Amino acid sequence: MGRDLTSDAPGAPRAAEAPEAGRGGPTRRQLLFGGAVAGIGAVAAIGVDTLTRRDDRPDATDEAAQALHGSLTVPFYGEHQAGVETPPQAHATLVALDLRPEVDRDGLRRLMRLLTDDAARLTQGTAALADSEPELAHVPARLTVTFGFGPGLVRRATDDAGSDGVGAGGTASVALPTWLRPLPAFTVDRLEEAWSDGDLLLQIGADDAFTVAHAQRMLLKDARSFATVRWTQTGFRRAHGSERSGTTMRNLFGQVDGTVNPAPTTEDFDGLVWVRDGWLAGGTSMVVRRISMDLDGWDRLDRGGREQSVGRFLSNGAPLTGTEEHDEPDFEATTAIGFPVIAEFSHVRRSRSDDTSQRIFRRAYNYDDAPTGDAVSESGLLFVSFQADVDAQFVPLQQRLDELDLLNEWTTPIGSAVFAIPPGCSEGGYVGETLLEEAS
Amino acid sequence: MGRDLTSDAPGAPRAAEAPEAGRGGPTRRQLLFGGAVAGIGAVAAIGVDTLTRRDDRPDATDEAAQALHGSLTVPFYGEHQAGVETPPQAHATLVALDLRPEVDRDGLRRLMRLLTDDAARLTQGTAALADSEPELAHVPARLTVTFGFGPGLVRRATDDAGSDGVGAGGTASVALPTWLRPLPAFTVDRLEEAWSDGDLLLQIGADDAFTVAHAQRMLLKDARSFATVRWTQTGFRRAHGSERSGTTMRNLFGQVDGTVNPAPTTEDFDGLVWVRDGWLAGGTSMVVRRISMDLDGWDRLDRGGREQSVGRFLSNGAPLTGTEEHDEPDFEATTAIGFPVIAEFSHVRRSRSDDTSQRIFRRAYNYDDAPTGDAVSESGLLFVSFQADVDAQFVPLQQRLDELDLLNEWTTPIGSAVFAIPPGCSEGGYVGETLLEEAS
Ligand code: HEM
Ligand code: HEM
Repeated sequence: MGRDLTSDAPGAPRAAEAPEAGRGGPTRRQLLFGGAVAGIGAVAAIGVDTLTRRDDRPDATDEAAQALHGSLTVPFYGEHQAGVETPPQAHATLVALDLRPEVDRDGLRRLMRLLTDDAARLTQGTAALADSEPELAHVPARLTVTFGFGPGLVRRATDDAGSDGVGAGGTASVALPTWLRPLPAFTVDRLEEAWSDGDLLLQIGADDAFTVAHAQRMLLKDARSFATVRWTQTGFRRAHGSERSGTTMRNLFGQVDGTVNPAPTTEDFDGLVWVRDGWLAGGTSMVVRRISMDLDGWDRLDRGGREQSVGRFLSNGAPLTGTEEHDEPDFEATTAIGFPVIAEFSHVRRSRSDDTSQRIFRRAYNYDDAPTGDAVSESGLLFVSFQADVDAQFVPLQQRLDELDLLNEWTTPIGSAVFAIPPGCSEGGYVGETLLEEAS
Repeated sequence: MGRDLTSDAPGAPRAAEAPEAGRGGPTRRQLLFGGAVAGIGAVAAIGVDTLTRRDDRPDATDEAAQALHGSLTVPFYGEHQAGVETPPQAHATLVALDLRPEVDRDGLRRLMRLLTDDAARLTQGTAALADSEPELAHVPARLTVTFGFGPGLVRRATDDAGSDGVGAGGTASVALPTWLRPLPAFTVDRLEEAWSDGDLLLQIGADDAFTVAHAQRMLLKDARSFATVRWTQTGFRRAHGSERSGTTMRNLFGQVDGTVNPAPTTEDFDGLVWVRDGWLAGGTSMVVRRISMDLDGWDRLDRGGREQSVGRFLSNGAPLTGTEEHDEPDFEATTAIGFPVIAEFSHVRRSRSDDTSQRIFRRAYNYDDAPTGDAVSESGLLFVSFQADVDAQFVPLQQRLDELDLLNEWTTPIGSAVFAIPPGCSEGGYVGETLLEEAS
């Protein structure tokens, strides 16, 4: 595990313009942008990369430069991990790892220290310590790295705690949230093992696909002596700056997707999303569902039928009883002949509970993999939701959708995983320390 | 092949804000931006989407809106197809199709009319005629669609011409450029059929991955009764606006890749890239090589060794005999002990010929697919080059690299295909008409 800085060849003309890697103090970019971008709300494109540019062109102050967003950073350290409240970036890759059999509690500590250090640096636009391609780290583009623990990891951490006498309560039963296990089976499920479960999750998001690729490789290089890749899922939304920030995403059915979602700026959010007690205080849970979408079948349905199945218009996402996206749906409204305007079987009716504590925070991505043979697309939704308690919030909702939801005709869950998202950490600490170091 | 406009459900509140689909005159966006963006040179982020927005928020003139790049369009019609001279977009997907056995010259005409119409609309931010998700078409983000013909397609077009008496010279031997065939075998090749050859190529590029996904599906839906998908390759560069436009791409080895490349603005370009005679006049040839890069092996090499293998510095791409990226390499320079500074085996020395007519125009993308098991990356270069004559320009170059090029140690061609890129067309025409309609 040599983690030395890659040394430059002697004599190379790079001393004055060396990349901002290394163990030194804060970089110019960090001083300029380190805390400049809030993790919450709309992100203005304020980054100007003039000081950190390594070429000699004269137009450092031109208009285009003013709008560069590659320098934007999201703070890494804090009460919560980034990548939950962070306005979704254009690209995300989710990687689930399986721990190697020999990795014990001590190994987990080393692994999470290593990965935390990598993430802390990369997200701030600084090369990781063992980064052999340091130049690829200099466009953070709002990179966030979010770590999640599967049941296997938590059990590994706590089983072992029994023998060395410390740890989160000393027994797995205390540390393991009851909801940290595979979801109950739903009748709609056609789950494939290849897309399900996992011990350690990395959610890597950025507004630049290259940034995601580099961070992914860097993290996996450091993880590989501890774990193997179980699955990788890559998703996208609209590019940074191609639409106005704050525009609700569309999915590949063409639907406006994400309209009704607790906003990180609202009062309810904390209670719905963050866990209050135990080693997970300040953390949350993450449900990942790979949901294949039958675009061909969907396209055969007429536009009216498609809108009925969700209860919203395709044009702008307004409820069938309204005109604007954010209008409140009127579930009582009926047509002239007495049928509900928003049908009983519609996705928006079925996905809303009378019990407001059953809400979840969705942060999904589209996926579109290479089609083969006669298929012309292999697409779907990389459904991601965060909630304080999977059993109390996600499960009843998914159960209702399982019973009745017209969208089920064209959507099929083919992968499923649940992770505990530990709280954030402060400088010098690491993600997972509340499980791996302390008694709860 | 119903190509009617998807009709909206009666009573839906969308009449006034209907998407700009349809057969009507130019849209507001086309009038505003249709020809605003040159296919050549740096693209300024001048697009403002205020007029075409379909929501009601008041900040239509805010600063962020001024920088939106989703409305930028590249002209579709012209002497040459777009996507060659066009400054590379952030995302590209290459799809190779195999024609179904029954598709004859007449079928090819219908196919290319259909696809040309789709591409002409989609690239201008307008839904295709049969588009079931018209809202997904409204962010062109510099979308280009470039069509390429493999040897199988040209043969199909000309074989059949014999029987109906018209066509490009009437015989395949005239229409088929000698270079339109699989490349000669190289010793470095480890080609897989799954990544090689094909009858019809679609190169779909845009600064927004969602735009690429939608265009890809739309085109494949219209192509599927004529052809099946043979392979799909997806690549990326830096996001639009994350770095200054004009910054040379880096590849996943961390190298600055693309420094010495004939610029579309220079005098040489036309002669090097565009074919002069026959049905391909105004067209070109495209070589696609999927080159796997052994990132692990590369990382084991020290930085000096990596720079020697190319002959350029990793920091800024300057030649080992210079300090700035665009400095001319000095191949005569020697070290104190008499060795060449830029080694004989280096990629830049081997890839440069004394014969300046042997140059090619490179337009590559990075690829990074999901790794499995112990691998932590499955990455490489989606090498794409355009040249007037494959045999006269690409082949001697690739032969030289095959004989000696230290980079071969870490790179392996695993896919290979050659396509003829027909010239562009004007409104009312279609791509391929010079082969499918006229005698040459
Ligand atoms: C591919 C599968 C799915 C698609 C295409 C889809 C699509 C949509 C759409 C278009 C809306 C309306 C706009 C909005 O408020 O976001 C919506 C709302 C919602 N969906 Fe889904 N959805 C899918 C799966 C799920 C799943 C698996 C869950 C949770 C188990 C879920 C939970 C919700 C919730 C809570 C809402 C907001 C309901 C409200 O108005 O209160 N969706 N979905
Ligand atoms: C994965 C494989 C490859 C990698 C990583 C790679 C990388 C590079 C790099 C770093 C440069 C120097 C900067 C520049 O001028 O762009 C370069 C130059 C070049 N490469 Fe490659 N290359 C690869 C494959 C190829 C292939 C297959 C060809 C053509 C058969 C090729 C043709 C060239 C040419 C013509 C130049 C410019 C040489 C000059 O300075 O005149 N490369 N390449």
